[in-house]
Amino acid sequence: MTRILYSLCGADETRPFSPHCWKIVLALHHKGLDFIEKPMPFTEISKVESGFSKTVPILRDGNELIRDSFDIALYLEDTYPDRPTLFGGEGGKALARFVEGFSQLVIHTAITKIAVKNIHDMLGDTDRVYFRQTREARLGKTLEEIEAGRSTEIDAFAAKLEPIRHTLKYQEFIGGDAPLFADYILFGALQWMRITAGADVFKDDDPVGRWFERCLDLHDGAGRRVTAA
Amino acid sequence: MTRILYSLCGADETRPFSPHCWKIVLALHHKGLDFIEKPMPFTEISKVESGFSKTVPILRDGNELIRDSFDIALYLEDTYPDRPTLFGGEGGKALARFVEGFSQLVIHTAITKIAVKNIHDMLGDTDRVYFRQTREARLGKTLEEIEAGRSTEIDAFAAKLEPIRHTLKYQEFIGGDAPLFADYILFGALQWMRITAGADVFKDDDPVGRWFERCLDLHDGAGRRVTAA
Repeated sequence: MTRILYSLCGADETRPFSPHCWKIVLALHHKGLDFIEKPMPFTEISKVESGFSKTVPILRDGNELIRDSFDIALYLEDTYPDRPTLFGGEGGKALARFVEGFSQLVIHTAITKIAVKNIHDMLGDTDRVYFRQTREARLGKTLEEIEAGRSTEIDAFAAKLEPIRHTLKYQEFIGGDAPLFADYILFGALQWMRITAGADVFKDDDPVGRWFERCLDLHDGAGRRVTAA
Repeated sequence: MTRILYSLCGADETRPFSPHCWKIVLALHHKGLDFIEKPMPFTEISKVESGFSKTVPILRDGNELIRDSFDIALYLEDTYPDRPTLFGGEGGKALARFVEGFSQLVIHTAITKIAVKNIHDMLGDTDRVYFRQTREARLGKTLEEIEAGRSTEIDAFAAKLEPIRHTLKYQEFIGGDAPLFADYILFGALQWMRITAGADVFKDDDPVGRWFERCLDLHDGAGRRVTAA
């Protein structure tokens, strides 16, 4: 059976960077499932699997095609119930949506302001045109204007992680003694920044930084094998 | 068996307002457990149960005494496993800490700036002295200086609820189809503001406002029976 994860890259396909795809890379390893990762540029996504999805991740699992990172995680949990759980029960499944909300609406918002010009500069020529147009329209500023506020955003970043820091007072991972999909949601965001912008936002003794290092080590260092910017 | 919840009130003991105590009021109802609530002023807490705790909630459950809202919820889940679950499994238990972190470090921080003077004005004379001293030292400003920024904080409040709003796109409660302790954590924060400051922070169509109304209706309107400020 062929299992393929379609993910996102810039000009260098050895450095896939999408936060949503990184969630699924770790989720597949968590379930112990073999897969081939096929990173591609933004403007190629709509061409694969007969235009199945405009966004990645897309998972092909034998005859099944699934899109959207949360839906893929739910699919993996349902389809492979005898493998290690990604949610730890129905409560964990529901609350993972809240972690997703925090990640996308607090952390991603900040990382976009830090990394958007770095991401642009990693892309091939065709993607650069697409990325600049869509992001400048969405953010209401030029990439250069956003970049001008980069250091201010970096300075403010660590404070936004306080809910994570609170959680880590009680447990090694967001999911408890061991990671769950909720860890991969937040890891995906920070891995996205690490690979695109490399911004060093953690003080040496920051528990969030230590947790992120633990996540980079998971599953034989699956996250760490892609180098930081 | 006598089950007593020691909670917090101002001069009017029919209007207990502590966010942490409200979590446990709803948690006890959720478990279908009878209890007597004994609201008391800040400066009386250390006198009950032989000085067992400097903070409320304190739960006496027969021969057991438990303090701290999260620890009480864990105790209730362990002690009454055949009653409706507060966590929905181990994953839900772990992620509830993250919801607690978000509630305390994002939502409580904002509500404190909105409600601190209102809370002061609800207290009896002895508590007012204690409250002003401790809060002004903690916040580094006089209560009146904080109150001067109140309307700015109210205007900024709704945007801070975006992770909750995201979650409610997928489900009726933070805990899924039905509430879990994670709902009561966030409800406690907003109920605290409702009773002390009454600040109307929701637009009519805000999903968070509609969820809060659903929470006020739970358990025969246990939350709604205390009127808003």
